[in-house]
This record gives sequence, C-alpha cells and structure tokens, in this order.
Amino acid sequence: MILEHVVLPVIPGREEAFEADFAKAKEIIAAAPGFVGLRLERCLETESRYLLLVEWETLGDHMEGFRGSAAYEEWRALLHHYYDPFPTVEHFEVVATA
Amino acid sequence: MILEHVVLPVIPGREEAFEADFAKAKEIIAAAPGFVGLRLERCLETESRYLLLVEWETLGDHMEGFRGSAAYEEWRALLHHYYDPFPTVEHFEVVATA
Repeated sequence: MILEHVVLPVIPGREEAFEADFAKAKEIIAAAPGFVGLRLERCLETESRYLLLVEWETLGDHMEGFRGSAAYEEWRALLHHYYDPFPTVEHFEVVATA
Repeated sequence: MILEHVVLPVIPGREEAFEADFAKAKEIIAAAPGFVGLRLERCLETESRYLLLVEWETLGDHMEGFRGSAAYEEWRALLHHYYDPFPTVEHFEVVATA
C-alpha cells in the first residue's frame, strides 16, 4: 500500500468552488484501478490549504495507471486551475502505527 | 476529530536511529488523553523525509493537553534532535472521503 500525499494551496476565495468540484472529481479517481481510498482535509491554521491523501495498491497504479489515463485529464480539468503555486506530490510507505 | 500533520526532514544517515526512537516515542503519545491514532510514513522519493499523521479528538488535546504535559518533554527529548530544519505542524479537518 502506497500513500500519495499532497498539500494543495487553493487560491484564496475559491475554496467553496474547489470543494464542489472535488466532490465530482473524487468519483473519477475512486474508479481508477488500484485506488484504495482518499481523504481531503482542510487546514485549521490557513483555510485555503488542503491536504489530499490517497491510498493506492501500488506506486504504478497512481503514476502510470491513473496519470496515464483519460480519467486523469478529467481530474486535471476539474481541479488543477484552483492551485497556486502548483503543488508537489510525494509518496509514502508506512513505518509505524499506533 | 482533528488531524495533526507534519512532514519530518530527518538528518540524512540518522533514519535508522530515528525509527528506533520513534518506536519508543509512539508509546508516550499513544497514552495522551484525546489521542486517537497515528501513522508514521517514509517518503519514497526522498528517503530521509517522513510524514507523521496523528488523530486527536480535539485541537486542545494536542496543543494544550499533550504539548503542556511532562510526556511531551520525553517525546521532544527522544525525537526533536533528528530534524533539520525544524518542521512546521499544522492541523486539518476532514472535508471529503472516498
């Protein structure tokens, strides 16, 4: 299991529209092969910052599978115009839980 | 429910010692009032970067409760010397799941 991690700096004032479009976009990503689950969270200290965590079965399911799909073009068209600057995506693997 | 989020830049070469001390430190935080759960994850792209996600019942359980406790001094002594630069902690609240 791989965790995709990205902090999303949404353009201030566009939070409500972003959340509405994310509600549509999440159905697109949830249908991707290897998708396990996601959480979108909003920052308490800076209200235009969001945290997106997506669990994938493998790194390839995200990087080659989803990113190489037609569905990703829909995802991008719905969401990418909300971000400034454009965020960096990283992947993590669990070391410890409690 | 509140998610504490912090990306930990561990000093390169100290990852193994950090993980061993984290295994001790997690017992300290897990005993704190309002602690719900945690995950420590390691970055695939940059192996000295870690992601710590801690769920708390309330923001106060983390910021006043845990941070104001003697247990936090033990946590700090075990872990804080591994980080450079010192990381920024933020808190998030869930907006959407799938």
